[in-house]
Amino acid sequence: MSKPSNSDRQQQTQRIAIIGVGLIGRSWAIVFARAGFDVALFDAQAEARECAMSRIKASLADIARQDLLDSATADAAAGRIRICEELETAVGDATHVQECVSEDLSVKQALYRRLDAWAPVGAVLASSTSFLAASRFTKDLPGRSRCLVAHPVNPPHLVPLVELVPAPWTDGAVVERTRALMDAVGQAPITLRKEIQGFVLNRLQGALLAEAFRLVEDGVADTADVDRAVADGLGLRWSFMGPFETIDLNAPAGVADYCARFGPMYYEMAQSQADPRAWTPALVTQIERERRARLDEPDLQRRQDWRDRRLAAVVAAKRRAARDIGE
Amino acid sequence: MSKPSNSDRQQQTQRIAIIGVGLIGRSWAIVFARAGFDVALFDAQAEARECAMSRIKASLADIARQDLLDSATADAAAGRIRICEELETAVGDATHVQECVSEDLSVKQALYRRLDAWAPVGAVLASSTSFLAASRFTKDLPGRSRCLVAHPVNPPHLVPLVELVPAPWTDGAVVERTRALMDAVGQAPITLRKEIQGFVLNRLQGALLAEAFRLVEDGVADTADVDRAVADGLGLRWSFMGPFETIDLNAPAGVADYCARFGPMYYEMAQSQADPRAWTPALVTQIERERRARLDEPDLQRRQDWRDRRLAAVVAAKRRAARDIGE
Repeated sequence: MSKPSNSDRQQQTQRIAIIGVGLIGRSWAIVFARAGFDVALFDAQAEARECAMSRIKASLADIARQDLLDSATADAAAGRIRICEELETAVGDATHVQECVSEDLSVKQALYRRLDAWAPVGAVLASSTSFLAASRFTKDLPGRSRCLVAHPVNPPHLVPLVELVPAPWTDGAVVERTRALMDAVGQAPITLRKEIQGFVLNRLQGALLAEAFRLVEDGVADTADVDRAVADGLGLRWSFMGPFETIDLNAPAGVADYCARFGPMYYEMAQSQADPRAWTPALVTQIERERRARLDEPDLQRRQDWRDRRLAAVVAAKRRAARDIGE
Repeated sequence: MSKPSNSDRQQQTQRIAIIGVGLIGRSWAIVFARAGFDVALFDAQAEARECAMSRIKASLADIARQDLLDSATADAAAGRIRICEELETAVGDATHVQECVSEDLSVKQALYRRLDAWAPVGAVLASSTSFLAASRFTKDLPGRSRCLVAHPVNPPHLVPLVELVPAPWTDGAVVERTRALMDAVGQAPITLRKEIQGFVLNRLQGALLAEAFRLVEDGVADTADVDRAVADGLGLRWSFMGPFETIDLNAPAGVADYCARFGPMYYEMAQSQADPRAWTPALVTQIERERRARLDEPDLQRRQDWRDRRLAAVVAAKRRAARDIGE
């Protein structure tokens, strides 16, 4: 981690509670603990609680091996994490609660009643949900103004993006404070001004996927070639700058110049992309067949491990490039 | 470059002519020459011809510094490039002509008449155009079956993707041979089965841009936060695997499993993304203002240099990761 900034100092008294210690919860524990915060973990399942520490230590060892953390910091991080047997104990002195339970609306509704009852009045209640708007499980809570979504990308200890999505009744100061906390722990928070299906990340991914499926369905290209267009083309730049900066740098006088040159072409193209299409069984079968021809189903797990190692390598290389070339 | 493959050997007798020595033409010269092929360059502008070699040598020195090529290979590559004073000389013994002139239909139409007249009968005529279908400038040529689009991403000596787009009358063997040539020189070719506006790359980019503009216009997020969603989220994975492989690895049983879980959500989302929108002056002004608040117009060139250095770092890191972790 870099030296403490102002926002780090403002955040120095934060105590974190994490509810649910699946993949996402354990990864969040690493995020907060490596930044120097005390983390209390709770999971309703005894088995999950019992395995959590050894799994977190294994992940910390992994990222130390991948040159993303030194061993001393990894050890110190593990020392800041404690497992609690009771929800109430975990959240009892928390300043920030990061909820990571299953994506089940009724489970979340019941849990938030307990969190709102037991967490200190000043604590923020943040959900890791990827698609449930906070308004759907916080509406009737006395403390609903301290609730919001803080949606990470899996795994947050490698991918820094966090989407902050307030409900209509979320206090603006709660959003600001959560954004400062995410900055302080080295994540990359973004703030949505309103609830919207899919938030920002999955809406962008969905738009690209819709066109990818359309190109395959219309026989323009196969799945492997569409994948190449991203992995050997668009994705290289997008790993260090977003779509607006990309087009801003792709015309001599910046983004307005780019829009004047290419806006009409993109508008015409948008009209040919405007038919929303369901992914039909025939199309899904074709895509599944093309993917399985490249990767047998029994090899999926091995390939997921490959992906995680490559992802760690991208994150480590990006950190070096930001340091050597500039952010 | 790695050791010669079968397709390298099939390509050993290729002689390349490049017509137009702007940024793209010079970068193509590096691609072919570093792979061991002789390259003849022609440009209608005397000044462009005169500066071409020194600019190419500067780029070769750059990529040698960036750890992407050793100095001996860079020197040897420069030695394989010659500048021709006449179009006819450049293409006279070519097996592959890579056209890189301005994106002006009448200029291309006139040029292809000359190329088809002067290039040996067996030579492929490939256009670097980013949006003009080959059918629009090759229709009336006796040798139209040897013409196609081979659209690179700028600069091709760093970004490997090449889109091969045949006209309806392009010989399938010409497409195959061009794909083998691009493989042999270390590019990443994809093959479109038909002409379509924007080809694949710009259609995917356009779909993502349309949603990015929509999110800003609808007040969901600002441009900087939309950029973060890509640069600190989606783009990290997309720099080494495409959208289909991404979702294939994001559900326990692969892509069909993913589609069963999330297809209905994406379909609902697609319906809210289906209105094609022109980029209005008001929206463009807002985006320009947000970008200029982060980067003054006089700093655009400096930031473009930063982008090129970061891009080279991504390419170098990706090559290391592919070697150490696997492709």
